[in-house]
Amino acid sequence: MKYIFGIDIGGTNIKFGLINTDGKILLNDSIKTKSELGSDKTFDRIAEEIEKLRVEKNIEKSDILGVGMGIPGPVLNQETVVFFANFPWEENLNVSKLLGEKTGYKVKVDNDVNVITAGEVWQGAAKGHTEVLGVALGTGIGGGVISNGKLIAGIGGAGGEIGHMTIVPNGKLCGCGKKGCFEAYVSATGIERETESRLSINKKNKVWDIVVKKEIQKVEAKDVFDAAKLGDKFALDIIDYTTDHIAHGLSIVLHITNPKVVVIGGGVALAGDILFDRIREKIKAYSLPVCVEELKILPAKLGNEAGIVGAAALILN
Amino acid sequence: MKYIFGIDIGGTNIKFGLINTDGKILLNDSIKTKSELGSDKTFDRIAEEIEKLRVEKNIEKSDILGVGMGIPGPVLNQETVVFFANFPWEENLNVSKLLGEKTGYKVKVDNDVNVITAGEVWQGAAKGHTEVLGVALGTGIGGGVISNGKLIAGIGGAGGEIGHMTIVPNGKLCGCGKKGCFEAYVSATGIERETESRLSINKKNKVWDIVVKKEIQKVEAKDVFDAAKLGDKFALDIIDYTTDHIAHGLSIVLHITNPKVVVIGGGVALAGDILFDRIREKIKAYSLPVCVEELKILPAKLGNEAGIVGAAALILN
Repeated sequence: MKYIFGIDIGGTNIKFGLINTDGKILLNDSIKTKSELGSDKTFDRIAEEIEKLRVEKNIEKSDILGVGMGIPGPVLNQETVVFFANFPWEENLNVSKLLGEKTGYKVKVDNDVNVITAGEVWQGAAKGHTEVLGVALGTGIGGGVISNGKLIAGIGGAGGEIGHMTIVPNGKLCGCGKKGCFEAYVSATGIERETESRLSINKKNKVWDIVVKKEIQKVEAKDVFDAAKLGDKFALDIIDYTTDHIAHGLSIVLHITNPKVVVIGGGVALAGDILFDRIREKIKAYSLPVCVEELKILPAKLGNEAGIVGAAALILN
Repeated sequence: MKYIFGIDIGGTNIKFGLINTDGKILLNDSIKTKSELGSDKTFDRIAEEIEKLRVEKNIEKSDILGVGMGIPGPVLNQETVVFFANFPWEENLNVSKLLGEKTGYKVKVDNDVNVITAGEVWQGAAKGHTEVLGVALGTGIGGGVISNGKLIAGIGGAGGEIGHMTIVPNGKLCGCGKKGCFEAYVSATGIERETESRLSINKKNKVWDIVVKKEIQKVEAKDVFDAAKLGDKFALDIIDYTTDHIAHGLSIVLHITNPKVVVIGGGVALAGDILFDRIREKIKAYSLPVCVEELKILPAKLGNEAGIVGAAALILN
């Protein structure tokens, strides 16, 4: 049996998985990221951890096929990180070369949402498919587009940047500085902004009831879904508004890459059927029949392990 | 030297090119399509024409690498035409097999806009690039998306169907039955509809002056561009409106596949700088810097020969 290390670098923790070529996770581990130590020191610590885990599991170096890694930010050629979205590290860092030299293994790197998508294709909801759109609906929105079995990076690593498609010209201001981005409408932050705006003129609803009971009276996207599940009309209106925008945005991608599966993960996706049922219904009005007839819109399956499993998948592709 | 036949099946004519592996066109020819004779008879006639041209040029059968073909409609695996957009022929016809058997050559087929895009990549404005968006702005709107050097077909051949992305929810009715499609706004037909609508309440402009002089008083997109070039404000407003929608629609694709080159052809693109200058300027407001900094938006180069050159390119890929 051969093995792969899958690594998921987050702002707080670096997660490690030792995964066999069947996709089984043999070992899960994590260390603090401590990005303030700089990139070189961090990759030293990663190399040490990899070696520690390999020895712990008594695996020969020759049985390690490589190291896959997911990072937040655009990546070129699965080697070079254009910039790290969370860390003040150098731009255009060839992580593949750097960690390759420190470990002696083949190293492939990709954007975290691309990695999650690759994981869902290898072992999750989109298992075995070659035409897939992966979507992370969280604080922000990320996308991973797989066509002809390969991730689309584009010339600057911005392939799959679906969060910044303009869906409403001159619409809501987005964190990126543009207006009307998909992310400004359908991310958790977007849902919260819309809800706060509506609450400012309507407090007779269950969302407000939930919010006032909290220590810090701040709306969270989850409050809206919770109130909607209780049948609250105010909350259901926001869900309709949001899912209509999600359906519109996703339908656009269907006409460009015509995927078989759209896999949606991230915190907002945890809302479940109340979200997915509406998206599946609303997307039809925005789409040519050929784009939706055989389409499956599915919740992500791998959850917290998507990052390490997907990172390992990079090495097998 | 080796040779390829490139064939472009249109509603009226079938064009033939004999092209060498350097992209040089040795011979141009055409026959009437006569689609009413049915698919089988038509492909018999195509096979006969190929043989006639080969003998005429005194080329050995073994020096023919294959036959590439562009057709209007979605295509799977560069083999099977899901349906012919213009002809009442059978669905899911494996043209590759059918014409392969009739000629003895390897045959590859693709959608006409995909083929044109492949041609522009092989010998035209996007020569040598692997990340390209090809756009045909004509009576309708078609797209060809090339990522990682390959055309994106998707599961139903609807990859690159950018004409039917919804850019204005609940917007103008499109010929496909949906509302707010890109095509409804930026095709020649879309420009003409918008112009007719505006002319109905404003006839004091140069577009109207041009239209009334015609035998049949019908607006054509070209009239608008002609009036705009004379400085007519009414026409310039329509150009601004149209190019703003073009910029919005194209910017969306930039965030999905992050191409290096957007090549725009078709009748509307013949308007030239007045169109391209505005698109290049307006697209910035809709796009993340990473998507436009190194982007080139170029007019197609191959013109009428794009179909046969692109069809030949399929065989080399």
